[in-house]
Amino acid sequence: MWQHLLGNFPVGRSTEFLSSRSVGLVVLAALGSFNAADAQRLAPVQAADPLPSWNDDANKRIILGYVGRVTNATGKDFVAVADRIAVFDNDGTLWCERPISVEFAFAFAGVDKYVALHPELRDRQPYKAVIERDTLVLATAGPQAIGEVMAVTHSRMTTTQFDSSVSAWLVSARHPRFDRRYTELVYQPMLELLGYLRANGFRTFVVSGGGADFMRVWAARSYAIAPDQIIGTTGRLSFELRDGKALLRKLATVDLVEDGPGKPVGIHQYIGQQPILAFGNSDGDLQMLQFTEDGHEDGGARHPRMMLLLHHDDAVREYAYDRGSWIGRLDKALDEGRRRGWTIVSMKTDWKTVFKNP
Amino acid sequence: MWQHLLGNFPVGRSTEFLSSRSVGLVVLAALGSFNAADAQRLAPVQAADPLPSWNDDANKRIILGYVGRVTNATGKDFVAVADRIAVFDNDGTLWCERPISVEFAFAFAGVDKYVALHPELRDRQPYKAVIERDTLVLATAGPQAIGEVMAVTHSRMTTTQFDSSVSAWLVSARHPRFDRRYTELVYQPMLELLGYLRANGFRTFVVSGGGADFMRVWAARSYAIAPDQIIGTTGRLSFELRDGKALLRKLATVDLVEDGPGKPVGIHQYIGQQPILAFGNSDGDLQMLQFTEDGHEDGGARHPRMMLLLHHDDAVREYAYDRGSWIGRLDKALDEGRRRGWTIVSMKTDWKTVFKNP
Repeated sequence: MWQHLLGNFPVGRSTEFLSSRSVGLVVLAALGSFNAADAQRLAPVQAADPLPSWNDDANKRIILGYVGRVTNATGKDFVAVADRIAVFDNDGTLWCERPISVEFAFAFAGVDKYVALHPELRDRQPYKAVIERDTLVLATAGPQAIGEVMAVTHSRMTTTQFDSSVSAWLVSARHPRFDRRYTELVYQPMLELLGYLRANGFRTFVVSGGGADFMRVWAARSYAIAPDQIIGTTGRLSFELRDGKALLRKLATVDLVEDGPGKPVGIHQYIGQQPILAFGNSDGDLQMLQFTEDGHEDGGARHPRMMLLLHHDDAVREYAYDRGSWIGRLDKALDEGRRRGWTIVSMKTDWKTVFKNP
Repeated sequence: MWQHLLGNFPVGRSTEFLSSRSVGLVVLAALGSFNAADAQRLAPVQAADPLPSWNDDANKRIILGYVGRVTNATGKDFVAVADRIAVFDNDGTLWCERPISVEFAFAFAGVDKYVALHPELRDRQPYKAVIERDTLVLATAGPQAIGEVMAVTHSRMTTTQFDSSVSAWLVSARHPRFDRRYTELVYQPMLELLGYLRANGFRTFVVSGGGADFMRVWAARSYAIAPDQIIGTTGRLSFELRDGKALLRKLATVDLVEDGPGKPVGIHQYIGQQPILAFGNSDGDLQMLQFTEDGHEDGGARHPRMMLLLHHDDAVREYAYDRGSWIGRLDKALDEGRRRGWTIVSMKTDWKTVFKNP
């Protein structure tokens, strides 16, 4: 939208979050300025196999082909680095969301503790359903009830206290079936894809219905994505001075639900640019993929786009679910994806491995 | 907040927005991975004089000294690149906000046209005050009236239409006193400071009460800052399918007013990290500076912080205003800044030049 203004723009220099080692050493990816010739020479980064956990089949070739085309500076499909924006759903796209999403697991564990302190809530909904892990009741209880559940763990505390609470839980909690930490249940093929895209000049954003505050605690490390590139559902905050010191307190009111039509809205508000690649796995990602395909730049340039859906069809290594599921329902988006020719990735046939390599 | 999780984090690679030339050539700053030794060697970037438009006085030495300390990998004040977050107000800090803010000038021009088409509004407030440029009436009319004025130019259109409208206006509009385009009234010393910080591993964010959509049209070029690092006031959007194509429409409802206490809130929502440097010029920046000074990391690390206020005391080259002004009032923040020992930059004595060099 603003690229046409870049006319005689002086070459700037900028840095990007990467990572820091625990001892405070620095890993710095962006120093020095490159010129256009450098960029042209370097742009199509091609490791021997940048996606080793993907089977060598049609879908892998589609992905490699797309990235090759948009980074080929002499081709008609070339996309400038500034426009290489990729957006990824999180739950069910970058990590396991079954049997319940990890953030629900965190919230439910918090409700267990809370009800132990307030036994009068034991027989009241939605607390009763949470304690009994009765997802059928919860699925039909509506957003108000879910909000009440989430508020127990997600509000009435400072942002710093919330971060500590999530960190502490993640260290001890284990997935009920795989008996691994949740952060070990990120998908290896997706980590490779994220890294491959970044190596080819893409900026990779997470755009998730999950809470931004919840994700930022662990996703920066898990995905090598800076907090400001992790977009999620946000709650209202109050700015307060306590003993003359500034702090932020989390309130129970939800601001933006970053799901369904909220995804393109969040993309506009947070990124302010048109994505050219979007990857989701459920109906909550439908509008993000539609927007990625249809949105257009002001200047009239129409870059080639790539829309992908992960289909969970692997009950042996992970889970098999789509149209009938409450969590991660893939129904309308599957039909729309097939109709529009989006790339439907099969966990079972396209992926050599599922979870992060140890 | 998440740095303590970075333990054995594999070295990632990432790129950052820089710029693209109009002919589609690419300037790419971030390719390849550096190791810690590289970073240590490269970190304290010191040009002969990185701030040539700043007079060689105490304030310049304070700025250079601070950046030198936080980038000195062997010193006690060292801050990892991932934590070098700087936030800047826009109006009155990065460019001229007098006699009225540029976004008001845009909105007022739009109201002029609108009222010409709807003459029945000519004698109704707040339209009458706008047409007569009666800022006294507007200043006392309250946020509801201001919202009504802004809605004329800022809503009932798609995001793409809005971008075009701002671009077209910026090309033709001229500042009433300086007779230059508004984008030529960005401050040269601030452009140098932004570039100097980025050359030293900082990520520079704009955090402004101005509209995010308004700023992103021109600020990416003017400041070499990517749209996702430009945070401002946002309005509600509706996602729509028109003829089966996805688009976003701007609604008249304001979501987050990125001013006063809204600034630390926006910093948390959009950046998700604690800034270590903040630069403002008015009472609307007070909470951002308080939050920058007081906020603390989870892990207990307390990085040195730098808070700055630009004092407009130069009626000859720009404007002189502080406590008595409606636009850009600097009153409480000036007192608080003096009390807390923030750096008060004088336009008159600290800056060799004011506006962007041609």
